[in-house]
Amino acid sequence: MTPEILRALLVEVAEGRLAPAGALERLRDFPTSQLEFAQVDHHRELRQGQPEVIFCERKTPAQVTAIAERLAAAAGGFLGTRATAEHAAAVRHRFPAVEWNELARTLWLRSPGVDAGSTDGPLTLVVAAGTSDLPVAEEAFVTLQALGHRGKKLVDVGVAGLHRILAAGDQLRQAAVVIVVAGMEGALPSVVGGLVGVPVIAVPTSVGYGAAFGGLAALLGMLNSCAAGVTVVNIDNGFGAAMAARRILLRAAVAP
Amino acid sequence: MTPEILRALLVEVAEGRLAPAGALERLRDFPTSQLEFAQVDHHRELRQGQPEVIFCERKTPAQVTAIAERLAAAAGGFLGTRATAEHAAAVRHRFPAVEWNELARTLWLRSPGVDAGSTDGPLTLVVAAGTSDLPVAEEAFVTLQALGHRGKKLVDVGVAGLHRILAAGDQLRQAAVVIVVAGMEGALPSVVGGLVGVPVIAVPTSVGYGAAFGGLAALLGMLNSCAAGVTVVNIDNGFGAAMAARRILLRAAVAP
Amino acid sequence: MTPEILRALLVEVAEGRLAPAGALERLRDFPTSQLEFAQVDHHRELRQGQPEVIFCERKTPAQVTAIAERLAAAAGGFLGTRATAEHAAAVRHRFPAVEWNELARTLWLRSPGVDAGSTDGPLTLVVAAGTSDLPVAEEAFVTLQALGHRGKKLVDVGVAGLHRILAAGDQLRQAAVVIVVAGMEGALPSVVGGLVGVPVIAVPTSVGYGAAFGGLAALLGMLNSCAAGVTVVNIDNGFGAAMAARRILLRAAVAP
Amino acid sequence: MTPEILRALLVEVAEGRLAPAGALERLRDFPTSQLEFAQVDHHRELRQGQPEVIFCERKTPAQVTAIAERLAAAAGGFLGTRATAEHAAAVRHRFPAVEWNELARTLWLRSPGVDAGSTDGPLTLVVAAGTSDLPVAEEAFVTLQALGHRGKKLVDVGVAGLHRILAAGDQLRQAAVVIVVAGMEGALPSVVGGLVGVPVIAVPTSVGYGAAFGGLAALLGMLNSCAAGVTVVNIDNGFGAAMAARRILLRAAVAP
Amino acid sequence: MTPEILRALLVEVAEGRLAPAGALERLRDFPTSQLEFAQVDHHRELRQGQPEVIFCERKTPAQVTAIAERLAAAAGGFLGTRATAEHAAAVRHRFPAVEWNELARTLWLRSPGVDAGSTDGPLTLVVAAGTSDLPVAEEAFVTLQALGHRGKKLVDVGVAGLHRILAAGDQLRQAAVVIVVAGMEGALPSVVGGLVGVPVIAVPTSVGYGAAFGGLAALLGMLNSCAAGVTVVNIDNGFGAAMAARRILLRAAVAP
Amino acid sequence: MTPEILRALLVEVAEGRLAPAGALERLRDFPTSQLEFAQVDHHRELRQGQPEVIFCERKTPAQVTAIAERLAAAAGGFLGTRATAEHAAAVRHRFPAVEWNELARTLWLRSPGVDAGSTDGPLTLVVAAGTSDLPVAEEAFVTLQALGHRGKKLVDVGVAGLHRILAAGDQLRQAAVVIVVAGMEGALPSVVGGLVGVPVIAVPTSVGYGAAFGGLAALLGMLNSCAAGVTVVNIDNGFGAAMAARRILLRAAVAP
Amino acid sequence: MTPEILRALLVEVAEGRLAPAGALERLRDFPTSQLEFAQVDHHRELRQGQPEVIFCERKTPAQVTAIAERLAAAAGGFLGTRATAEHAAAVRHRFPAVEWNELARTLWLRSPGVDAGSTDGPLTLVVAAGTSDLPVAEEAFVTLQALGHRGKKLVDVGVAGLHRILAAGDQLRQAAVVIVVAGMEGALPSVVGGLVGVPVIAVPTSVGYGAAFGGLAALLGMLNSCAAGVTVVNIDNGFGAAMAARRILLRAAVAP
Amino acid sequence: MTPEILRALLVEVAEGRLAPAGALERLRDFPTSQLEFAQVDHHRELRQGQPEVIFCERKTPAQVTAIAERLAAAAGGFLGTRATAEHAAAVRHRFPAVEWNELARTLWLRSPGVDAGSTDGPLTLVVAAGTSDLPVAEEAFVTLQALGHRGKKLVDVGVAGLHRILAAGDQLRQAAVVIVVAGMEGALPSVVGGLVGVPVIAVPTSVGYGAAFGGLAALLGMLNSCAAGVTVVNIDNGFGAAMAARRILLRAAVAP
Repeated sequence: MTPEILRALLVEVAEGRLAPAGALERLRDFPTSQLEFAQVDHHRELRQGQPEVIFCERKTPAQVTAIAERLAAAAGGFLGTRATAEHAAAVRHRFPAVEWNELARTLWLRSPGVDAGSTDGPLTLVVAAGTSDLPVAEEAFVTLQALGHRGKKLVDVGVAGLHRILAAGDQLRQAAVVIVVAGMEGALPSVVGGLVGVPVIAVPTSVGYGAAFGGLAALLGMLNSCAAGVTVVNIDNGFGAAMAARRILLRAAVAP
Repeated sequence: MTPEILRALLVEVAEGRLAPAGALERLRDFPTSQLEFAQVDHHRELRQGQPEVIFCERKTPAQVTAIAERLAAAAGGFLGTRATAEHAAAVRHRFPAVEWNELARTLWLRSPGVDAGSTDGPLTLVVAAGTSDLPVAEEAFVTLQALGHRGKKLVDVGVAGLHRILAAGDQLRQAAVVIVVAGMEGALPSVVGGLVGVPVIAVPTSVGYGAAFGGLAALLGMLNSCAAGVTVVNIDNGFGAAMAARRILLRAAVAP
Repeated sequence: MTPEILRALLVEVAEGRLAPAGALERLRDFPTSQLEFAQVDHHRELRQGQPEVIFCERKTPAQVTAIAERLAAAAGGFLGTRATAEHAAAVRHRFPAVEWNELARTLWLRSPGVDAGSTDGPLTLVVAAGTSDLPVAEEAFVTLQALGHRGKKLVDVGVAGLHRILAAGDQLRQAAVVIVVAGMEGALPSVVGGLVGVPVIAVPTSVGYGAAFGGLAALLGMLNSCAAGVTVVNIDNGFGAAMAARRILLRAAVAP
Repeated sequence: MTPEILRALLVEVAEGRLAPAGALERLRDFPTSQLEFAQVDHHRELRQGQPEVIFCERKTPAQVTAIAERLAAAAGGFLGTRATAEHAAAVRHRFPAVEWNELARTLWLRSPGVDAGSTDGPLTLVVAAGTSDLPVAEEAFVTLQALGHRGKKLVDVGVAGLHRILAAGDQLRQAAVVIVVAGMEGALPSVVGGLVGVPVIAVPTSVGYGAAFGGLAALLGMLNSCAAGVTVVNIDNGFGAAMAARRILLRAAVAP
Repeated sequence: MTPEILRALLVEVAEGRLAPAGALERLRDFPTSQLEFAQVDHHRELRQGQPEVIFCERKTPAQVTAIAERLAAAAGGFLGTRATAEHAAAVRHRFPAVEWNELARTLWLRSPGVDAGSTDGPLTLVVAAGTSDLPVAEEAFVTLQALGHRGKKLVDVGVAGLHRILAAGDQLRQAAVVIVVAGMEGALPSVVGGLVGVPVIAVPTSVGYGAAFGGLAALLGMLNSCAAGVTVVNIDNGFGAAMAARRILLRAAVAP
Repeated sequence: MTPEILRALLVEVAEGRLAPAGALERLRDFPTSQLEFAQVDHHRELRQGQPEVIFCERKTPAQVTAIAERLAAAAGGFLGTRATAEHAAAVRHRFPAVEWNELARTLWLRSPGVDAGSTDGPLTLVVAAGTSDLPVAEEAFVTLQALGHRGKKLVDVGVAGLHRILAAGDQLRQAAVVIVVAGMEGALPSVVGGLVGVPVIAVPTSVGYGAAFGGLAALLGMLNSCAAGVTVVNIDNGFGAAMAARRILLRAAVAP
Repeated sequence: MTPEILRALLVEVAEGRLAPAGALERLRDFPTSQLEFAQVDHHRELRQGQPEVIFCERKTPAQVTAIAERLAAAAGGFLGTRATAEHAAAVRHRFPAVEWNELARTLWLRSPGVDAGSTDGPLTLVVAAGTSDLPVAEEAFVTLQALGHRGKKLVDVGVAGLHRILAAGDQLRQAAVVIVVAGMEGALPSVVGGLVGVPVIAVPTSVGYGAAFGGLAALLGMLNSCAAGVTVVNIDNGFGAAMAARRILLRAAVAP
Repeated sequence: MTPEILRALLVEVAEGRLAPAGALERLRDFPTSQLEFAQVDHHRELRQGQPEVIFCERKTPAQVTAIAERLAAAAGGFLGTRATAEHAAAVRHRFPAVEWNELARTLWLRSPGVDAGSTDGPLTLVVAAGTSDLPVAEEAFVTLQALGHRGKKLVDVGVAGLHRILAAGDQLRQAAVVIVVAGMEGALPSVVGGLVGVPVIAVPTSVGYGAAFGGLAALLGMLNSCAAGVTVVNIDNGFGAAMAARRILLRAAVAP
C-alpha cells in the first residue's frame, strides 16, 4: 500500500463512499505499506543516481546478471561485490562497460550523471596494514567510489614498522573517516585510534595463519582495542566498512 | 621535549651556541616530544572543560581517589566508569559533589562552566533492547553527558515486540547517531540499521544465559548483521560506544 | 494508537472534520498501533486468565515486586522465573498467596477463576534424565501449570539404564508433547525421539563437569540428534520449552 | 521376535508343549522384538504410502541407488536428501521418474496413490530470510511435500527490511507451523516468534562469512531468541525442520 | 516385572488360567523387566558386597543422607563422590563409621565382609603428574579401594623431570592398568604409554591457569597422544577412570 | 648401548682394563640404551610376527613404499593406515600381495606364519552407529586382524532405533572389549556402557554436519557419558581404539 | 642412584667383589640416577644460592609452609608465586624475614650471601602496557630479582599513546631481554618487536572484559604478531616469562 | 627525513639561512625520520649481506618475482617463505641460482660474500618430534642458514619413545638455542625444557587429526608446559622460531 493508495482510501471515506468500519478493515494490512511510506526519504536517498549493490557470493553468474539488469534499468548502474571471474565474464557480456576489479572482486557499472568517486567532499582514508590486506581495502575503496564518496588508500603501514603510520599523521588527521584494515594481530586500529580523534572503523581480515583462526585473532584484537571509540565490522567486510563510513558522511552532511 | 624546548634548541643553533652535530645528538630522543607536539590540537580538544576518564575496574578505592584528585586538579572534573560502591564511597569522601550512578556504575564530577549533557546540538539516541541491558545503556548515556553531548534513552524495544521500535521511527530518524544496546540474540541493531540511515553503533551485552556464552551470541549476531554499515564495540562496552559516537559528533561538527 | 483512535480518526474524515491530507499526516506514526491491533487476538489469548511472566534474574526484589503488582492488577496473577529466595521474600510480603517453588525457582500467583494445571486436555510429559536435571524440568512443569496446561513429570530415566525409559513407553506415546531435559551427553532426546512420533522438545542442562562446558556438550548432542525432528531450546531453558509446548498445544486446539 | 512368534510361544505353553522354564529361557532375547512390537503403530504410520528417506551424503551413487531400490520395492517411492548431481544421474538411470531438485539437493520418487504435497490440510509456511538461504528452505519444502503435507514458501523477508515480513502477517497467522530459515545473525525467528503464536521452528544456515563461523552465529542467535517458545534444529538442517513440523502436524491431527 | 512375575505368568498360561492373548497383552510392558532380567548378572556383580555410588554434587546434604540410608540398607555400605564438608557432616551424623576423605572429596562406608582395597589381585597404578593433581588421583584411588580392587599411588612424576617417571619403570610394567592423572599440557600419558604396553587411562585435570582453559589443554593433549592406544575420560573424572579400570579388571578376571 | 655392550664394559672393569672413573664417564650416555633394554620385552612382543604400522597421511607414495620395504624386511609384513589410492598403487606395485581396503583406507601385508585375525581368543566387538561410521569401524577392525586379534563388526545400531542394539545384547555381553564408533550426538557408547560391564572404548567420528563441528559434538558427548567407565579416543581414530583394545587383551592374557 | 653410588658399584666390580652379571642386574634401575647425573650441572646452577620456587595456588598455607621449610633448609631461601594473604601469614609466622609482595603475589626469602637483584649484569626490561597489567609484570620482576638478575620496570606505555613507548627507545635498545606484558588486544609486543632487535618475550594478561575472553584476545594477538621473532608464554604467566629470560641470560653468559 | 637531511637543516639554521621558526615548521614531520634514524643500527645489521624475507603466501608469482628483484638489487640475495612450485618456477626463471626447497617451501638466493649457514658460531638445534613435522622444522633450518647462523636438525624424537630424545642429551646441552617443533599433543618441548637449561622455542604444528583442531592442541599444550621458561610461536611458524633464535643469538654475541 503506497501513500497514494492510502490517500485514495481516505478520500473515499471523506466522500462517503467508504464507511469508517470498512476502512478500518482494509487498514488491517497497513503496517507494511505505512512502513514503506515512512522510509520513503531514506529510500530516495539511496536510489538517486547511486548503484544498488549485488552480493555475488553463492549466486550463479546468470542470477547476478539478471539482478544487474534489473538494477541497471532502475538506477542506470550497479555495484557487485564478492564477484568471481565467472561472474565478471557473464555480466560483461551483457554490460560491456562494467568495470571488473579483480583484486577487490567488484563489478561496477557507473550510473550516468553520477559523480562517482568525486574528488571533493570529505575524505575517507582506507588504511591497510599489509599488502595481503589489500583485497579487503580495495573492496572498501571501490564501494566508496561507487557510492560517490571521496576515498584514498594508504597501504603497508603495519605496526611492526611504526614510522610508516607515523609519517602519515597529516593524512590521518585530515580525513573525515578512517577505515583501518588489518589481519594477523589486528593492532593497527589501536595505533591509529590513539593518533587521531576522527571516526575509526576497523576491519579484521582473514590474513594470517595458524592461530589467526581465519581472522578471529584480529577480530578479538580490534574489539578489545585500548583506543576508546574504535568500532569494528565483520571479518573481511570491506563493503560493510564503506557503508558504515557512508552513514557517518551522510549524517555529517546534513547536520544542522 | 616540548615545542618550546625544540625552539630554544634551534635558537641556540641559529645563534652559534650549539653546533649542528651537537643538536643532532640531542635530537636523538626527539620523536616522543614531537609526537606530543603533533597531537597538541587533539589533546587540547579532549581537555577543554571535559573530564578525563578513570577505568575503575581492578583499581583500589585509594588508587581511584588519587587519580581523581589529579584529574580534578587539571580539568576541574572527571568521569569514572566500572565503579563499585566501595569506589564511590572513597571518592565521595574526598569530592562530596561527585555523582554516583549505581546502575551505570559511573562516578562523575562535573567540570565548572561546562555544559554537560547540553540540550542542544546533535542528538545521540541510546536504545536498549531490554531492561536488563540498562546498565550498559546507562554507562553510554552518562559518558555522553559528561563529555558534553546531548543524549536520550529509549528502553525495552526488543525485536520480539516490533511495534515498540517501529513506534520510535521519528526519534531514530532525527538522531545524529544511534547506539543500540542488546543482549541475547542481539538482533535489534539489524532492525534499527534497516529502518534508518544514520550511524548505528551496536553494543552486545552479556545479558542472557546458557548458549549466550557471556555475550558471544549477541556479539556474533551484531557482526553478522544483515543491515549494511552497522559497527560493533566490545561486549558491555557502553563507554566505548559513547566514545565512538563522540568521534562522529566531533567530526560532523567541524566538517567543512 | 488503538483501533478506537483509528476509528475515531476515520469518522472525523467521514464527517468532513478532517481532510484526507491531514489524516495522512497523522497516520505517519500508524504502524505501531496498527501492529498492536493486528496482534490483538494473540494478546487476548495471552491475557485471558493467565499470568504474565517476570524473568527475575538481574532484577532487584523491589523491581520484581513492582512488576508483579502491575501484572496482578491487570491479570489477577503472575509467574516469576529464575527467582531467588530474596525475590520470594519480597514478593510474598506483598502477595502472601504467592507460591514459591525453590527447586524450580518460580514464584506463582494463581489468577482467580483460572483452571491452572488442569487435569484434562492434552498432556505434556516433562522427562528428566537425572535428578540433577530436576530444577530445569520443574521450571518447565510449573510454567505449564501456570499457563493452564496439563503436565506430568517423569524423572531419572537416563540412557545408562535404558529399561527405565523403555518402561515409560505408554506414557510417552500418550503425550501430546514431550519435553526432554538432560545434561551431560544429552542423549535422552535421541532415544525418546526414536521411540515415539510426538513432538519432542529437547532442553540441554548445564549439569555435568569438565568437558560438559556448562551445557555445551548436551546442546551439541541434541542439535545433532540422529532422531529426526527433535528440536532444541537454550541451555537450562525450561521456561522456553514450556512455551514451545504451548505453541504446539494452542495450535492443535484450534486446528480445523 | 514378532508378536506372532510370541503368540505362538504362548500357545505352546498353553498347550503344554513348552514348560514355563523353557519359555523363560527363550524370552531372554525378548526385549527387541517386544520393542518392535511396541512401535508397530508408529512404523505403520511412517510406511503407509510415504517414502522412506535416504541421507545421500558420504554415500556412493551405487549405494544410494541400491537403497533406493529397496525402498521403492517396499513403499513405491522414496526421498533422498543431500544428493549430488552424481547421485541424481545414477538414480535417474534406474528410476527415470525420479524428480531431482538441484537447489534442494533432493531426489524424490512419488509413491503411487499418495497425495504428495496435498493442497488441503494444515499449512506449514517455510520462511527464508534471504535468497542464499533458499537451498535449506527448499529442502524443508520438498520434504514436507514428499511426506504429504501442505507447504508454502516465503522468501527474502530478512529483518533489515522489516516491511517485508510485516506484509506477510496474515500468512504467518494462518499457518499451522512456521519454519524460519536464516543465516548471518539469525534474527528472523525472533521477529516471527514475536509476531505470531504458532509453533516456530528455526533453522540456522551456514550463509554468511567471517565471524558467521559456518552458521554458529545464527545458531547462537536463535537459541538465545528473545521470543519465548522458538525451537531450533541443526545448522542447514531443512530436512530436520520438516520432520519436526511433521511431528506437530501428526499430533494435531489426532488430538482429541 | 521381575523374572519371578514372568515365570508366574507363564505358569498361569501353562495351567490354562490365562489365555495366550491375555498374556500377550500383559507382555506389552515387558521390555523393561526383561531388560532388567537380561542384566541380572551384571547387577549381581555390582551389588555383591560392594557399595553403590552417590554423586553428591548438586545434591543437598539431606538428599545425600537419604540415598545413603537406602544404599546402606541394601548393600551394607556406599561410596559418595564430590562430597563437600556439609555432605560429610550430615552423613556422618547418621553413619558415624563413614570415612570422609577431604582431599578426594569421598564418603565411604565399608560394606561388612568385603575385602575393600584388597592387597592381592591385579594392581591398578594411579599416577599423578603433580601434587595439584592429587585430589583427582585420590578420587580414583578411593573408588578402586571401595570397589575391592588393589590400587597404588605414584605422585609428582611430571614430564619436566623425566627421571622421576623413568625410575618407576618396574612399577608401571607390573601394573594391570595404569591411570595417569595430569593437568597443564597433559603430556604424562604419552610418556607412560610409550614406556609400557598395559592399558593406560588418561585423566585430564583442570589444574593450570591461563590458556589451560579449565583442563581443555590437557584434554586435547591426551586425545592427541602420540602413544597409540591411550584412552581418555572426562576432565577431573577420577571416579570414571577407576570405573574404566574396573571394567578391564573384571573382564581380565573372567577371560577364558 | 645394548645390554651386551654394558656387560662388556663391566667385564672390562672387572678385569682391570677400565678404571671405574673411565667407566663412569662412558656411562654418561647410558640412559637411552638402558631404557631400550628395559623395554626389550615390550618390543619383542610387538615385533614377533606382527606388522609394524605406517601412518600414511602426509607421506608421499614413495615414502610409504620405502618404509613398507624396511618393515617387510624386518617383520615379513606391515600395516598402513590412512592410505589413499595413490599410496595403494605404489605399494602394490612393490608388494603385489598387499591387501588394500578402500573403505578402511588400510594397506596390509600379512606376515607369513602369523594367525592374523584368528578365530579364537577373546573377541573385540566393533560397533558402528550408522553406515557413515563404517570407515572408522573398518579401520579398527582391520587393525585388530592385522595384530592377530579376533574381531567382529556390528553395524547400523544407532540409538534412534533402540531395538537394534538391544537385539545384540548377547554379542555385547560375550565380547572381551567393545569398541563403539559413532558420529552426530555420539550417544551409542552411553547406551552400550549401560547395557554391559565389559570395557567400552568410544570413538567419535566426524560424521554429521552443521553443529557437529567435525566430530566435536560426538567427542564431547562421549566424554560426558553418563555410563561410568567409558573411555574415549580421538575423533575418527579407529586405529587408536584397536590399539587400546590390544592393550587390554594382552594384559588379560598374562593376568595371573 | 647418585654418581657416588654408581662409582661405588663400579669400584666393587673393579675390586672383584661384584660380578658383572650382578652389576648388570642392579643397573636395571639405572636410568633415573643416570639422568640425574647427566643434569648435575644444570641442577647445580639452579641450586647455588638461589631460591627454589613454590607454586602456591591450590596449596594450603600449611603445605606451602612445609615446602618452604624444606627449601630454606636446602638453599637458605625460596620464592613462592601465586601466594594469597593466607599463604603469606602462615609463612611469615615461620619465616619473619620473608618478603610478601601483595601486588605480585610473591613470597620471597632471600638466600644469605646471594646478590639478589644485582645492579650489574645484563638488564631485563619488564614493560607493562597498563597499570592493570602490573601484577603480572611485578611477578616477572620479583622472579628476576630472586634469581639474581638485574631487572627494571617500565609501566603504562600502551599503544593507544605511542609517544610513551617511543620515548623509551634507549631503554629498550639497551636491554638484554625485553618482557612485554599486555592485556586487551595485546598489541604492545608487536610495536616493541618492531622497534628493537633484542629478544622479546610477550606475556598476555587476562586484563580486559567482554570479548577479551580471559586473555584469549591478547594471547592470539601476540601469537600472530607481525613483528618476527616475538615469543609468547601463557596468560598471566609473569613467572614463566622471567624463567624464559633467565634461559637467555644464562646462555649469553656462557656463550663462547 | 634521513639524518643527513636533518644535519643539513641544522647547518642551514647555524648559517642563518633558515630561521628557527621555519625549521620548527619543517620538523613537524620529523618523528618518522627520527625513528628511522634511531633504528639505523638495527637496520644496518639486517641489511648487511643478509637477505630480506618475502612472505609468498597470498602473493602472485609475478608479485614475488618483483619483490625478489628489488631485494636482490639492494642486498644481493633474498629469502622467500611459504613459496609454492608456481612461485619457484617464476623466480627461478629470473634468478637461475635461486635454491628451491620443496619441503621447507623456501626460495633462497644467497648473497655473495655471505657466510650462509656458517659452521662455527653458536649452534641452534632444530628438533622435530615426527617426520610429519619436518616441513616446519626445515623452514626454521633454512631461515637460520640464510641469516648466517649455524643450525642442525634432529628428527623423529617424539615422546612416545623417550630413549630417542634422551640419547640426544649432549647435543641438546651444547646448543645455544633449541627450537622444538611438534604437532599432536605437543609434549616434546616440556620434555626438552626439563632436560636442559638453554632457551627453548616451541613451535606447534598443524600435524594431527580429529581433536588436534589444526594445531590448537599442540599450541595449548606448549603454552601450558610444565617446564618453566619455554616460549611459544604461532602454529607452523618455523620462520618465526628462527627469527626468535636470531634475536637471542645476536644479543648473546654483543653481551658485555
